[in-house]
Amino acid sequence: MRKYAVIVAGGSGQRMGSNVAKQFLLLQGKPVLWHTLNRFLNAYEDLSVILVLPQQELQRGAEIIAMLGAEHRCEITAGGATRFHSVKNGLQLVKEPSVVLVHDGVRCLVGTELIRRCCETAMARGNAIPAVAATDSIRIEQDGHNSVADRKHVRIVQTPQTFLSDILLPAFETEYSDAFTDEATVAEAAGHIIHLVEGDYANIKITRPVDLLLAEKILEDQA
Amino acid sequence: MRKYAVIVAGGSGQRMGSNVAKQFLLLQGKPVLWHTLNRFLNAYEDLSVILVLPQQELQRGAEIIAMLGAEHRCEITAGGATRFHSVKNGLQLVKEPSVVLVHDGVRCLVGTELIRRCCETAMARGNAIPAVAATDSIRIEQDGHNSVADRKHVRIVQTPQTFLSDILLPAFETEYSDAFTDEATVAEAAGHIIHLVEGDYANIKITRPVDLLLAEKILEDQA
Repeated sequence: MRKYAVIVAGGSGQRMGSNVAKQFLLLQGKPVLWHTLNRFLNAYEDLSVILVLPQQELQRGAEIIAMLGAEHRCEITAGGATRFHSVKNGLQLVKEPSVVLVHDGVRCLVGTELIRRCCETAMARGNAIPAVAATDSIRIEQDGHNSVADRKHVRIVQTPQTFLSDILLPAFETEYSDAFTDEATVAEAAGHIIHLVEGDYANIKITRPVDLLLAEKILEDQA
Repeated sequence: MRKYAVIVAGGSGQRMGSNVAKQFLLLQGKPVLWHTLNRFLNAYEDLSVILVLPQQELQRGAEIIAMLGAEHRCEITAGGATRFHSVKNGLQLVKEPSVVLVHDGVRCLVGTELIRRCCETAMARGNAIPAVAATDSIRIEQDGHNSVADRKHVRIVQTPQTFLSDILLPAFETEYSDAFTDEATVAEAAGHIIHLVEGDYANIKITRPVDLLLAEKILEDQA
């Protein structure tokens, strides 16, 4: 079955203390986003990339695709005001029944094994959301109070959040809600049961300077 | 007010895929535990360390204290079957009203600023538990189902969990419960309200190989 990776890179880099949006920071001399795209393109030969970027970054996205020599396998589109709107824009480019992997552009260390696990589970069960167990205690803080959550039950959600297009496209035909913090919440609102699959602790998101350091170290170690 | 850091290092290293307990793995040529102790000893001159180790590791702990030349400021005691029992053993060595900071031995990058923030809040309010906001979506999985948690309310708990000894010592005079996953849960069971303070994303716990890589990189960067 055809595969589409919708890679969402809408962030402005404010949390990084950097003027460069975090998806364009350099890791081993190449933009974070280059690494992300490269990993998806290498996972399956019949996978196409739909890259969603802020309007003002479209040109830089095109340059990264050219660096990869992958113009024939990638399309670019502009994002929207929220992740929901950005993903929805990307989904307009899905043209046939397929498996759709929605991925954070800044999770540049995603492994082939995880990509394939998500695809296979989504083909069998309709969707696959990677998640890892919490390694720290978790507290829920609300209305000035806080209470402990049972760590055994806490799962930290990652991407690629993966769905059959027949499930994801209709689910996105809805009004936006603040509760739509990822694609799983959108599918859930449309009545689907979410299937968690084992994620990967190395599949980190570059959101702070310390994450960029970690990514460099993991890359050195994988080399 | 006198300060005690109860540093708990009971882990066996099973998750590291290593025969060396993770607190003894080398970071820049020195054991993880050396770094942890060093940071507490440097934070306050009137701070004493109570190091809690498995019985068979007491000698290695003594060697680390000797490396630091800190024999006059440190005591060692053997741990117990659970974190609760290990901390309880350590608290036997608290001999006067004080602020007690209970810390994971493998959080070797804890900063002076965080140590002081915890102490100051605990002196003012009785306790201080450092926590950071979740950067990922969280799901709660239970009885084969899972549902999303509101990320705005999720706090990832760190250490040093810090208390006035007048609160912590009586709280530990209780029967063990499985719900006692950290010191905050013990104090809470004794009727105390938990005060969260801002933690530090760099204050990581060494639990997997990838964490050791990150710690190395952060240390290089801080140097």
